[in-house]
Amino acid sequence: MNINGKKWRTIWLEANGTSIGVIDQRKLPHRLTSFIINSHEEAATAIKSMIVRGAPLIGVTGAYAVMLAMQKDPSNESLDNAYEKLLSTRPTAVNLSWALQRMNKIIKNIPLNQRAEVAKKEAQLIAEEDVLTCEAIGSHGVKVIKEVANSKNKVEVKRAINILTHCNAGWLAAVDWGTALAPIYKGHRSGMDIHVWVDETRPRNQGASLTAYELGCEGVPHTVIVDNAGGHLMQHGQVDLVIVGSDRTTSSGDVCNKIGTYLKALAAYDNSVPFYVALPSSTIDWSISDGIDEIPIENRSPSEIFEVEGQLASGEIKKLRLCPVETKGYNPAFDVTPRKLITGLITEKGIFTPNELAMQSHL
Amino acid sequence: MNINGKKWRTIWLEANGTSIGVIDQRKLPHRLTSFIINSHEEAATAIKSMIVRGAPLIGVTGAYAVMLAMQKDPSNESLDNAYEKLLSTRPTAVNLSWALQRMNKIIKNIPLNQRAEVAKKEAQLIAEEDVLTCEAIGSHGVKVIKEVANSKNKVEVKRAINILTHCNAGWLAAVDWGTALAPIYKGHRSGMDIHVWVDETRPRNQGASLTAYELGCEGVPHTVIVDNAGGHLMQHGQVDLVIVGSDRTTSSGDVCNKIGTYLKALAAYDNSVPFYVALPSSTIDWSISDGIDEIPIENRSPSEIFEVEGQLASGEIKKLRLCPVETKGYNPAFDVTPRKLITGLITEKGIFTPNELAMQSHL
Repeated sequence: MNINGKKWRTIWLEANGTSIGVIDQRKLPHRLTSFIINSHEEAATAIKSMIVRGAPLIGVTGAYAVMLAMQKDPSNESLDNAYEKLLSTRPTAVNLSWALQRMNKIIKNIPLNQRAEVAKKEAQLIAEEDVLTCEAIGSHGVKVIKEVANSKNKVEVKRAINILTHCNAGWLAAVDWGTALAPIYKGHRSGMDIHVWVDETRPRNQGASLTAYELGCEGVPHTVIVDNAGGHLMQHGQVDLVIVGSDRTTSSGDVCNKIGTYLKALAAYDNSVPFYVALPSSTIDWSISDGIDEIPIENRSPSEIFEVEGQLASGEIKKLRLCPVETKGYNPAFDVTPRKLITGLITEKGIFTPNELAMQSHL
Repeated sequence: MNINGKKWRTIWLEANGTSIGVIDQRKLPHRLTSFIINSHEEAATAIKSMIVRGAPLIGVTGAYAVMLAMQKDPSNESLDNAYEKLLSTRPTAVNLSWALQRMNKIIKNIPLNQRAEVAKKEAQLIAEEDVLTCEAIGSHGVKVIKEVANSKNKVEVKRAINILTHCNAGWLAAVDWGTALAPIYKGHRSGMDIHVWVDETRPRNQGASLTAYELGCEGVPHTVIVDNAGGHLMQHGQVDLVIVGSDRTTSSGDVCNKIGTYLKALAAYDNSVPFYVALPSSTIDWSISDGIDEIPIENRSPSEIFEVEGQLASGEIKKLRLCPVETKGYNPAFDVTPRKLITGLITEKGIFTPNELAMQSHL
């Protein structure tokens, strides 16, 4: 996608072939800087500290990290160590484990001296596939937007289609295109009149910082709202469609996504607003069915609630404390939206209802 | 209530009898400072800039502001001017208009030379009544907590009752005691084991700053969460009861409260968690029935979303920017929770279901 008219991806192999470069997402929207990762340990830190984030991008970063480990030491022990270290960084999104398993499987069965090269090819393939997958999600998803636009324009004066999204499931969460935002980019580029309500997404403000930044770079009209506001907008007919991403989807169509997604799904259901989830099929965990009981939810540091990072008028990036010093906090990073609240799942292979998904284990 | 063991109210008549003092709520939780109001114009500014906030406290401030106007100029014109100026500061909460009408009615019919004195007595009476009203809400509301505690302890090991609240409807929102927090204070002082989940309450963070501060001062165990987290907690049985305040309640029991309340009510309903609203009967607007269509919702500056105020590590209080510089925002301050989602309304006169309220126009 574009930043100041220049094409970017979120992750790339550096020219030396033994480092990977990423956009440092902690610094956006205030600074666009890249960050160089030289080892699988550095990759693990980058994932944990959210220099890179977003389910698809975490998967691709994990794949490249295995490549870095194989370049340093192609032994089975090194492979196992890298796998375990990377897997433990973020427990909820399933793409990481999917990508690590894929790397592991292909590397395990080949001689040590070929492992670095095979790992490099496979990681690059995973990255390229992610781009194609996200673009396909965009192509399928744009049909949903068109359908909503057609149904609205039948009864109302022609106006923009208002789409609400939560967190950042745009190209910054993937390699390119994104998941929830891919249909929006496809629609906007094809001339559709789309306006996006951007949930701020506390505590890390990925909406206010990353989604607003992305949409601004692509010229898509958008408005930032606090996470509290979406229900009110839906009550007043100001939201035509919700599209969010997914960190893990169960075989029955429950969706685990950024904390707060469930509240928006409840409001959409209460106000008959279509609620769609856009996801690469690699986020489907066929091994589990009940999302609320079975998906491990990452609890992050309460300091993410107490302290907010942003830019002072002077330009400096600083942290401010919001709460009294003695206060305790609790910071679960994801919640589960039960299938009953979901209109459809937009994948690279087409659009499914949760019921249809349950029958599609061939995906 | 207590701050460092010393009794405080949020508003008081200064010793000179011609100024009112208030706690400057913009500075909490980092600094406890008072702010002196010398005229009704300064009172209007204090209400608008949220030096004072909370439906009951806005009403009392409005009453004292009319007193200040009458001390300077007791004419009808001065009374009308003060009334209009104060009424326009915050459109949603109905207590302000209730208090201003009450002051207006009593002053209008007496000679000019007695107006300042009568206004002073009436404003003081409104303030004292607010304290008694809130304490009565506490006494009624504690029965709800006891009921929930009894029903939980029948089936579970004895543990704290977890109450979720949104925004600040504590004593800082009133003169003393508060509305939603009054039952919690009453219960805690009587030895009940209560833990409070405090919604941060974006964009102005009244939960993270004011509610956490209040509960800390009174020694009530509490944990700050982001507004996105409450639904997840309810799905996992971690919330036994929700109590929130109200800025305006319709004759049919719809409740207008801080933006985001509706989302918590939906989640409570979906998870069979009792959802109560605590309110002085002065927040009931008997003239309207449908909250979603009829209550004017204040839209505040989007800068409240873009910029967050807090304390730097150095101790300085500063503002940070979260969003890209060109981003637009939309900032409705309240939403309406429809009666169907409300278990009960805790007033100073007892506890009513929305249906019972509709039949209680004698309140």
